[in-house]
Amino acid sequence: MDLKRYLEEKKAFIDKVLVDYLPEEPPFGRRLYDAVKYSLTVGGKRLRPILCLAGCEVVGGEQKDALPVAVALEMIHTYSLVHDDLPAMDNDTLRRGHPTTWKNFNEATAILAGDALLNRAFEVLSECSLDSDLKVKVISEIGRAAGMLGMVLGQQCDMEAEGRKDVSLKELEFIHRHKTGALITASVVSGGIVGRGSKEEIEALRNYGQLIGYAFQIIDDVLDVVGDESKIGKNVGSDIKKGKITFVTFYGIEGAKKKAEEAVTRAVKSLEIFEEEKREPLERIACFIVEREY
Amino acid sequence: MDLKRYLEEKKAFIDKVLVDYLPEEPPFGRRLYDAVKYSLTVGGKRLRPILCLAGCEVVGGEQKDALPVAVALEMIHTYSLVHDDLPAMDNDTLRRGHPTTWKNFNEATAILAGDALLNRAFEVLSECSLDSDLKVKVISEIGRAAGMLGMVLGQQCDMEAEGRKDVSLKELEFIHRHKTGALITASVVSGGIVGRGSKEEIEALRNYGQLIGYAFQIIDDVLDVVGDESKIGKNVGSDIKKGKITFVTFYGIEGAKKKAEEAVTRAVKSLEIFEEEKREPLERIACFIVEREY
Repeated sequence: MDLKRYLEEKKAFIDKVLVDYLPEEPPFGRRLYDAVKYSLTVGGKRLRPILCLAGCEVVGGEQKDALPVAVALEMIHTYSLVHDDLPAMDNDTLRRGHPTTWKNFNEATAILAGDALLNRAFEVLSECSLDSDLKVKVISEIGRAAGMLGMVLGQQCDMEAEGRKDVSLKELEFIHRHKTGALITASVVSGGIVGRGSKEEIEALRNYGQLIGYAFQIIDDVLDVVGDESKIGKNVGSDIKKGKITFVTFYGIEGAKKKAEEAVTRAVKSLEIFEEEKREPLERIACFIVEREY
Repeated sequence: MDLKRYLEEKKAFIDKVLVDYLPEEPPFGRRLYDAVKYSLTVGGKRLRPILCLAGCEVVGGEQKDALPVAVALEMIHTYSLVHDDLPAMDNDTLRRGHPTTWKNFNEATAILAGDALLNRAFEVLSECSLDSDLKVKVISEIGRAAGMLGMVLGQQCDMEAEGRKDVSLKELEFIHRHKTGALITASVVSGGIVGRGSKEEIEALRNYGQLIGYAFQIIDDVLDVVGDESKIGKNVGSDIKKGKITFVTFYGIEGAKKKAEEAVTRAVKSLEIFEEEKREPLERIACFIVEREY
């Protein structure tokens, strides 16, 4: 298979439908709608929704069933970026090659646009055409991954670690398992749930998700040192500027890359219970994570 | 019935269980947990959860079924206060007689604590012991009321109206129907859903909720002019200081009170389909809203 084409096609498919899942434009408060739409459509790899669709297909489910879940995941990922970029948080002005939401609108509107996106994700999940039992399972899975047991906790830990020189590897791994890993894992797992995967299949996907989430963050740290700003679409060198402890601090650039590769190898291995043909997209996505330049 | 005692008992009941619905304290990022707990427990009338319990009981449901929904509603209400108080939003330092969350922790932690509370509400709803069909209905009802079709939109409109002298009554009503009315309505309606109320009963509760929500906001505007800071637990006179157009601007203090009383009369009337004994709490709560001093 041609992974580049696969990713492009899935991304185009998701880009096309994202806005369909927004409500109508309101008569007042239009800037909220504009900020939500801007944040969602300004770019992005759409990795989480693609993982969700692929997770659904690998267990034999149909892509259309996973689509609202994929959209909800991208809404949650986008909300987290909008809030993380705020002046009180990471104070970033550039994201995906464009001004961040708070920079393009204002702080208050960005806070509310983030809130709206998080909330909208759960509306979409509760109102899609899946069976109620599946909806509830997926809402719980994604809720845990996104909230104070997952991504939000990870972001808090990340902030608390900033500027500290005594961050242990254990703490760093905890941060990223929550900040990045949890939602990536939930993406592929929720796809598997929607596709009615068996318990064993769901666990294989969970294992896969955790490992590629770990690899993803390591490569993020590497790219912050050696990446090309025009490809990454965000400021490079920000970790060093902030004196941040990263995986590169512990392993060095080459060591970090090796750790990521090992994780990807194990992730691919966990897919062995699936048919060879069906598992190829997930295998290739795992490899792409360590090979990517953005 | 003794309304004061009724409200105190229900409030004590909710206060007692709120923290049980938080996850365990994490090994890292403890300040997030602390900020969430602080925001939830620092005080509050618990009006929305009480309305939810009362809405469940008026249709013949059991209070215990509505409890997780009541908790989720208070979490969402609390998150909205935490975010509204931020420097980039209303920049308030005092809430419920205590420092606001951002003032007591910091801005970033307050943003994340709000995010965590909103997210946790949906986790609680998806993981409670209700039937999946009921859960999904309630998540959709509350999601719509809280998000970019409801409360978040209302807050955006409120900000956009600030400082403008050309705010029409129509716009002002739109703001408050969304900012305050939507979640109050969803509170009593979701109680009715959980209690398995009939379609007619749910619609009566929706009507009731919209009317008391409207009355509630009018009285809020009145109290901002004539209220006692020590009773309200927040700064008084902030609307005038900001040059804000409120219901008092349009109706004057006495006129505004009269509008609120009319709405409450209509709210009480919409309860007539329920048995006299069962509807008393909701009737008395409606009256309390216009008589309250805080």
